[in-house]
Amino acid sequence: MIKKVLIANRGEIAVRIIRACKELDIETVAVYSEADREALHVQLADEAYCIGPKLSRDSYLNTANVISVAKLTNCDAIHPGYGFLAENADFADLCRLCNIIFIGPSPEAISKMGTKDVARETMKAAGVPIVPGSNGIINDSDEALEISEKIGYPVIIKATAGGGGKGIRVAKDKEELIKGINITQQEALTAFGNPGVYIEKYIEDFRHVEIQVIGDNFGNVIHLGERDCSIQRRLQKLLEETPSPALDSETRELMGEAAVKAAKAVEYSGAGTIEFIYDHRNRKFYFMEMNTRIQVEHPVTEMVTGVDLIKEMIRVASGEKLSLTQEQVEFSGWSIECRINAENPEKNFLPSAGKIEMYLPPGGYGVRVDSGAYPGYTIPPYYDSMIAKVISYGATREEAIARMKRALSEFVIEGIKTTIPFHLNLLENETFVGGDFNTKFLEIHDVMHQK
Amino acid sequence: MIKKVLIANRGEIAVRIIRACKELDIETVAVYSEADREALHVQLADEAYCIGPKLSRDSYLNTANVISVAKLTNCDAIHPGYGFLAENADFADLCRLCNIIFIGPSPEAISKMGTKDVARETMKAAGVPIVPGSNGIINDSDEALEISEKIGYPVIIKATAGGGGKGIRVAKDKEELIKGINITQQEALTAFGNPGVYIEKYIEDFRHVEIQVIGDNFGNVIHLGERDCSIQRRLQKLLEETPSPALDSETRELMGEAAVKAAKAVEYSGAGTIEFIYDHRNRKFYFMEMNTRIQVEHPVTEMVTGVDLIKEMIRVASGEKLSLTQEQVEFSGWSIECRINAENPEKNFLPSAGKIEMYLPPGGYGVRVDSGAYPGYTIPPYYDSMIAKVISYGATREEAIARMKRALSEFVIEGIKTTIPFHLNLLENETFVGGDFNTKFLEIHDVMHQK
Repeated sequence: MIKKVLIANRGEIAVRIIRACKELDIETVAVYSEADREALHVQLADEAYCIGPKLSRDSYLNTANVISVAKLTNCDAIHPGYGFLAENADFADLCRLCNIIFIGPSPEAISKMGTKDVARETMKAAGVPIVPGSNGIINDSDEALEISEKIGYPVIIKATAGGGGKGIRVAKDKEELIKGINITQQEALTAFGNPGVYIEKYIEDFRHVEIQVIGDNFGNVIHLGERDCSIQRRLQKLLEETPSPALDSETRELMGEAAVKAAKAVEYSGAGTIEFIYDHRNRKFYFMEMNTRIQVEHPVTEMVTGVDLIKEMIRVASGEKLSLTQEQVEFSGWSIECRINAENPEKNFLPSAGKIEMYLPPGGYGVRVDSGAYPGYTIPPYYDSMIAKVISYGATREEAIARMKRALSEFVIEGIKTTIPFHLNLLENETFVGGDFNTKFLEIHDVMHQK
Repeated sequence: MIKKVLIANRGEIAVRIIRACKELDIETVAVYSEADREALHVQLADEAYCIGPKLSRDSYLNTANVISVAKLTNCDAIHPGYGFLAENADFADLCRLCNIIFIGPSPEAISKMGTKDVARETMKAAGVPIVPGSNGIINDSDEALEISEKIGYPVIIKATAGGGGKGIRVAKDKEELIKGINITQQEALTAFGNPGVYIEKYIEDFRHVEIQVIGDNFGNVIHLGERDCSIQRRLQKLLEETPSPALDSETRELMGEAAVKAAKAVEYSGAGTIEFIYDHRNRKFYFMEMNTRIQVEHPVTEMVTGVDLIKEMIRVASGEKLSLTQEQVEFSGWSIECRINAENPEKNFLPSAGKIEMYLPPGGYGVRVDSGAYPGYTIPPYYDSMIAKVISYGATREEAIARMKRALSEFVIEGIKTTIPFHLNLLENETFVGGDFNTKFLEIHDVMHQK
């Protein structure tokens, strides 16, 4: 079993991983930027070391410093969390070279899934449904036109090195296509150092439904059900839930099987997520992308399955077999997560960093809070704006919603603006409560100004 | 359905009840003493009214004021919580007279179970195992001697009006018996206004195991498994868990059936607990007493069954049927509760009221905190010293213990002394971890000074 873990992250996910390690009696080493000296993860870890200045590229993305601290403190493993180095195949490879366990998949799996057109082809070969589109990278405009004509407009142009909503563009006719390809290629070259783009049929009315998978080093892969993340603002998820109110049990089963197939196709080990475009009107789903790491929204899966995903990641990285089989996975109840960001929802979600003067998280039955905040904590403006995740659990969706409203209404955060009022309005919205909506929900519904 | 509830209590249980009401969309009215103006329950309720000076007898026990507030604010129900008026049959009767729903059993059931010798006889008649002893109240010393000779020493003398560890005395021979009866009768007269005492065989080596029951107004009663409360200091419970590490499945089933029988014998409605003396060496159990109210330790039952006991109480008091049958009750995982008291465990648990300067409850997966505390809150010295309950949930006892240790180690309460260090030591104690101990555990193990 792994004995000492360096957590190459900050904020709530660093706290989450430290907690799991403590429960497994594993020593923890935190790293932090100069702006994070007072952060909670620094206080909770057994040891903590500064790895550079405030900007991520100088600290949390500084692979040499991260590896050095791990080596100097005799860590036998590194947990990357999400973001930063989590999907960096070179870093995973560097860990391997340095004889440190990277708590996640192999560099090869990260790389295959990180290159979007390769992932698409791999999925196609594995029999996982993909959106109709080009076979790999587009070589020139003529090829793009030909394919788009065949699959029909609108189409979506995607940078193969993109992800997380960056490097994508929709074209609804020939003209937009030609223009879009050029712009996207240029942008992709600048942003990701790779100008390659590919084309897919653009599905407008869909839900974002993803499947949690986890695999071990012995070829076993199981799935832990879906999460519906259709509530997004500018492609950023704001609320996630499981089960999905839009999935029937047959589609759920097919999607789970497809996800396991997808993970097995890259010999996946560790926790990962297969994101699907779910065409809920026609009950069809298509591979969108795989996130080869733990997700922000993993807690809702833990609530309904009882599986501690971070512990399971550590166990399989230690060389243990998965602690349960697919048949042993049981689902019970409903869980919702609201991401609480330090942003002002009244002012177009303007970031609102600063000092938290008063802080009291909600408690009681069926409420979980994952956060790096505390009374008197000053939120640095250099990183992600998410300061807490509130997770509710109930027997039904109705109860999970009621409990979330109760929890958010008692959450005290003074000194900064947060997205709590946004979530409280969202949870009152009739369409949201009804459960029938797609990823455009927040484009259509101005929940901050609803009656 | 009940529309508006007055919560005739304070502290964490008042907060707990307000939370359940909010989730059910029921309006809440808090009451408070002059010492509790700044209490959390006052801040969380929809309305709040002062009902008298700091001493409980002038405020929380002032039935006229409680009823008046309920009437003036148009409450259709009162939830008494635990302690204060919760087991006061006269108060339940007064509610009935005033046409207010008392969220709990009938005055008759409270009264029958509150009079210990009547409860004993009722249980005997219902076929619930009772400890060998006298048939009701002892009339004179000769009768006491005769019975004690028959059942064998040591015996225990109990005041029929007693409860919660008050008005009881052990006698290991004739001399102690004669002396003990006189003293207990005098004490009982002074403390409870009723000198009646009865005698039982004194079982020394036992565990305190209790069964949660809940009934509706249609004669349905189910049980929700057991709680092991053997970790006690001077008869005050400090840590509770479910399942009990000492119970085999056959005994568990028999105990559950006996508890349902006991509740049905008094036509019980609402949540209640049948406490048993569990002779774990011989796998025999005996009725100890019934608490005709919600218990402090109810959350552990909620964690393993998924049943929200406070909501269920409100529903059955509203006239609904139980939401589930005995067959539908499912148990999963392990849960532990630690009561965090404002006491100094280094100084013989000396009360430590005062201002909480810094407060940050633990969070994350499998951790629940029920508390009325917040940063800057001043704990008044007039009431119960319990300031928070930390509840952990895990797949196994081992995980629930590890998680509790993790949770307690990150719980920040500055400005006062608490029993957190006591619990951290207890959770490290080998005998506790082994699971084989009885109610004398804390008499034998000085956990504050263990190696």
